[in-house]
Amino acid sequence: MSIQPMVEKLPYWLREEGEYSEIVISTRVRLARNLSDTPFVQRASEEELSEVMERAREAFLRLERFENFFYMDALDPIERQFLVERRLMSPEFAKNGKNRGLAVGEDEKFGIMVNEEDHFRIFSIVPGFNPEEAHEIVDDIDNFLSRELEIAFDNDFGYLTACPTNVGTGMRISVLVHLPALVLTKEMDKVIRSLSQTGYFVRGLWGEGSRIQGNIFQISNQRTLGVKEEDIIENMKRMVKEVMDYELNAREILIKNARSQIEDKIWRAWGILKYARMLSSEEVINLSSAVRLGIGLGFITEISVLHLTRLLVLSLPAHLQLLVGREMEAEERDIKRAEFVRKTLGGKNDG
Amino acid sequence: MSIQPMVEKLPYWLREEGEYSEIVISTRVRLARNLSDTPFVQRASEEELSEVMERAREAFLRLERFENFFYMDALDPIERQFLVERRLMSPEFAKNGKNRGLAVGEDEKFGIMVNEEDHFRIFSIVPGFNPEEAHEIVDDIDNFLSRELEIAFDNDFGYLTACPTNVGTGMRISVLVHLPALVLTKEMDKVIRSLSQTGYFVRGLWGEGSRIQGNIFQISNQRTLGVKEEDIIENMKRMVKEVMDYELNAREILIKNARSQIEDKIWRAWGILKYARMLSSEEVINLSSAVRLGIGLGFITEISVLHLTRLLVLSLPAHLQLLVGREMEAEERDIKRAEFVRKTLGGKNDG
Repeated sequence: MSIQPMVEKLPYWLREEGEYSEIVISTRVRLARNLSDTPFVQRASEEELSEVMERAREAFLRLERFENFFYMDALDPIERQFLVERRLMSPEFAKNGKNRGLAVGEDEKFGIMVNEEDHFRIFSIVPGFNPEEAHEIVDDIDNFLSRELEIAFDNDFGYLTACPTNVGTGMRISVLVHLPALVLTKEMDKVIRSLSQTGYFVRGLWGEGSRIQGNIFQISNQRTLGVKEEDIIENMKRMVKEVMDYELNAREILIKNARSQIEDKIWRAWGILKYARMLSSEEVINLSSAVRLGIGLGFITEISVLHLTRLLVLSLPAHLQLLVGREMEAEERDIKRAEFVRKTLGGKNDG
Repeated sequence: MSIQPMVEKLPYWLREEGEYSEIVISTRVRLARNLSDTPFVQRASEEELSEVMERAREAFLRLERFENFFYMDALDPIERQFLVERRLMSPEFAKNGKNRGLAVGEDEKFGIMVNEEDHFRIFSIVPGFNPEEAHEIVDDIDNFLSRELEIAFDNDFGYLTACPTNVGTGMRISVLVHLPALVLTKEMDKVIRSLSQTGYFVRGLWGEGSRIQGNIFQISNQRTLGVKEEDIIENMKRMVKEVMDYELNAREILIKNARSQIEDKIWRAWGILKYARMLSSEEVINLSSAVRLGIGLGFITEISVLHLTRLLVLSLPAHLQLLVGREMEAEERDIKRAEFVRKTLGGKNDG
C-alpha cells in the first residue's frame, strides 16, 4: 500500500473551512477500545499483538469507507513522519513499528491506530469546531467494531482501557486552537492554568509531549469516566466558546493599545513568507501565526485561514520530501519549502 | 530663506546614476580655504566671524549658480538636521549656529560652509565615482573666491588651514562606497587597516565620528600637503578601483559558497521593506544594503541603486518631517517612513 496517493490529496480537515475556523483549526475525537480476549498492548506477547493486527485488518476490509491499512514496519521513516504530520498517528506510535498498524478511511476522515496504547484508537479529524460530526464518524466505526470483535466493556466502568484516564467512554475530544492574542497579551499562562483546573489538557500542535509552536494549542478533555459522551461534547462546546471570547477580547485590546506594532508584525511576516528563499518549518509555523491573526483582524485578505493551514501542513519536512520525490537535507528542504510557500502565496520572482 | 523648496527637489547626486554606481554612491571633493586678513575660526572673535559671514555672503551673490544662503542660527533643529541628512554640512557644524552660514548652489551641486573649522569649506557632491567633475566644480568656486577675497596662501606650504592635516591643497576627496560582501566575508577590517596604512580615512555614512551603517563607508585621502591635486585624484582612482575589485571578488565568493543564504537575506530585506508598517531609519539603511547587494548581483531588478539611495535619504527623520509638514515622535515617524517606503517600492496594501 503506497502512501503516494495520499500526498497528492488533501485530508478532509484541510478541504473546507469549518465552524469558528477563524480560531479553531480542527476538532478531533478519538475512542480508546480494546479486545476483551487479549491482554492490553503493554502486557501482550508479540504473537498476540500480531493476531490483533490481523483480526483488525480482516475486519476493516468490511468497514465502509475504509481505504488503506499500513503496517508500520513496512513504512520508511519519511512515510511514517508523513502520517504523523498528517495527524493520523502520534510521533510515539511512529517510533516502534513492530506489530503496529494504521487504518485510514476515505479522505482521511477517520483513522484507527492498532496496538498503540490500546488495541484500537479510533479517531476522526474534522475542520473547524464540530465535535458532533467527528463523534458521529467514530461512533459508526465503534458500532461496527463492536459487531465484528469482542470489545472489552464493563457494566460499571464502561470501556476498559490500558490507562485508567481513558476508562469509561474512552473518548477524548481535542481541538486545535490558534490563540496569538492571548499569547501576545501574556494571558495564555492564566488560561492554561484555568483550563487544567477545570479538566482540560493543553498541549502543543503535535499532541502529548510536543511544545507550543505558532501559538497553536491542542485542548482536550481529561475526564472520560463517569460522564456521558454528550456531556463531554457539551462541556467542550462551552469551554471552546469561552476561550474564543477571551481570544477575541485580547485581539481587541491589542488593536486598541498597539495597532501599529501588530500590523507591522503581521505584514512583516507576510513579506517574509512571500519573499524568503529559505524557510524552516518552525519559521513557517510562526510566521503563518502572525498572518493568521492578520486574516482574523481583517488586514490580510489575499489568503484564507484554510489556505494558511494547508500551507503549514503541506510544507512540513516529510510532506515536502514526498512531494519533491526524494530525501533532502535540511538546507535543501528549507529552499524547497520557501519555493513552495512563495508559489502558494503568489509571490513573484520565484525563479 | 526657506528650506522647503529643497525638500521637494532632489540634489544633483541623487538625480542620476554615476560611474561605478553599483558600488560608489557619490564622490565629494572639498577645499579648505581661509581669509588671509582674519584669524582662523577657533581664534577669531565673534565680530570677526560675523564679518567673515557678511563678506562671504556679499561675495556669493555674484557667484554663478549660487542659490541659497542659510544663517545657521535662523534655522530650527529639523531644518539643520535636514541639511545634515542632505550631506550639505557636518553634524558638528549644525550644533552651534552662531556666526555660521551655509551657501548652497543650484541643484545642490556645491555648498560652502562658512566658519566651520576653516573660514570656507567649499564642496561638491556628484553621483557615482567622478572626482574630476566634483573637483572642477569646487575649483571654479575657489577661483571665484580668490578673485573676490584675500585667501591665505603660502608659497611653500600652499593653502593655510586651521588644522595642519589640511594644509597644502586643502583638498579632500571622499567617496561613499557600499561594501556588503567585504563585510559579510569578514574582510572589511583588513581592508580598513590597509587603507589607513596607505593614507586614507575610513568613516561612516555621515563622516567624521559617525559609525558604520548599512555597510556604507566613506573613504577619504588623509594627505593634502606636498602632493598635487591631480595626484590626489589619480591615487584615489587607483584605490577605488582596487576596493571595487576586492568587493566584487568577495561577492563572487559569497555566491559560490552561500548563494541560498545570500539570496534569502536579500529577498527577506525586500519583503520587509515592501510590507513593514513601521521602519526606523537604521533599519531602512540596513535592509536597503541587502537590497542594493541584490541589485548588484542581478537578483532584484524592480528598482535601481539610484532609487534605493533616494529612498534611504528621503526617509531620514528630518526629510520625513519636512515632507509631512510637522514634527513627529519617533513612533509616528516609523509609521510614516514605512508608508513612504511602501509607496516608493510599489507595495500593495498601503492603506
